[in-house]
Amino acid sequence: MSGIFITIEGPDGAGKSTVIKKLAQKISENSSVQVLLTREPGGIDISEAIRDIILSPKNIAMDERTEALLYAAARRQHLVQKVEPALKEGKLVLCDRFVDSSLAYQGAGREIGMEAIWSINQFAIEETMPELTLYLDIDAKIGLERINQGRKFEELDRLDQEGLVFHERVRAAYLELLLKYPERIQKVDASKSIETVIDACYNLIKDKFPNLFN
Amino acid sequence: MSGIFITIEGPDGAGKSTVIKKLAQKISENSSVQVLLTREPGGIDISEAIRDIILSPKNIAMDERTEALLYAAARRQHLVQKVEPALKEGKLVLCDRFVDSSLAYQGAGREIGMEAIWSINQFAIEETMPELTLYLDIDAKIGLERINQGRKFEELDRLDQEGLVFHERVRAAYLELLLKYPERIQKVDASKSIETVIDACYNLIKDKFPNLFN
Repeated sequence: MSGIFITIEGPDGAGKSTVIKKLAQKISENSSVQVLLTREPGGIDISEAIRDIILSPKNIAMDERTEALLYAAARRQHLVQKVEPALKEGKLVLCDRFVDSSLAYQGAGREIGMEAIWSINQFAIEETMPELTLYLDIDAKIGLERINQGRKFEELDRLDQEGLVFHERVRAAYLELLLKYPERIQKVDASKSIETVIDACYNLIKDKFPNLFN
Repeated sequence: MSGIFITIEGPDGAGKSTVIKKLAQKISENSSVQVLLTREPGGIDISEAIRDIILSPKNIAMDERTEALLYAAARRQHLVQKVEPALKEGKLVLCDRFVDSSLAYQGAGREIGMEAIWSINQFAIEETMPELTLYLDIDAKIGLERINQGRKFEELDRLDQEGLVFHERVRAAYLELLLKYPERIQKVDASKSIETVIDACYNLIKDKFPNLFN
């Protein structure tokens, strides 16, 4: 495949969705490469239908492993129907979350185990891994405060404060992945201003793929 | 878990559904054990919803690996919500098809690979394997003739005849599993009369679990 596959990762509250949109815009302004911005389920009928099952409040009895298998299924179909065709056309695919999210959230956060989650995701994606993953790193407490509309950690109720343990596990998992795949994953300090974060991401892409840019 | 988990396997045309019903009846007549007869998705809402996605003619673009992950997800939920609770109550669970079907049909028949299919199914079922699997063995050609309302193989059209290669692969996979798990899987000759097949299944259960019977 002649395209370039880049994923963006990080906890909620790291500013991922704002960053990825402006990043796609900046790349388009400075390169002739066609950019596809996507995230699962990405408008793929089968993946959307799977996501509906995951998110339906009716399905409160859903087991965590069932959910993990459904996420992997939605990922597979999105990859085969949307990402891989774009890569074949030579596009740059910017994908908001990919396998690392499952490893961090389901493997570590929900404690199913990162190896177990990797096994089903490896089945789902086969050989198609991103060439570059931008990991937006943020302190778990600050991330949690951002999700809760900027309320200070001390002002959060007990339940939200307990969520901290979960978010610490997620962040630790991302850092573990960073150590394991130093070539693929690059850390960006997401505590900085949004402009600084976008510039950092942009420069990492430019460093890795200099030929893309004028 | 104090119950007993038994699965029935075999290609279409082996007479599985008739056998399993009469077998459940015969066990109930000769034992005080409560029998739960089930098959995936088994009336479990989440599994039924997943199965609807798999079977919907709208979803013609479904990738084979997506489908395999969806089957594994439906299996997981059926296991957690229906099979395991029944086993905890001490019931005998008779399940029409389980992991071996996925290994044979998707792993071998569709050539995804038995090891790959095993990895996602192992994730789905964890430690819960049947203690006994009754494999109803039938020659691929005869099975195919039975599916096609008894028409002779020579009378089938080209497309159905080509299906033979698929069914040969499925049967070979079942035989491979039989060699691999001689303790768990028992072969029953399904070319015999239905009464003979039921008796053979019944005796295998009786031999393995003599304490169940009066």
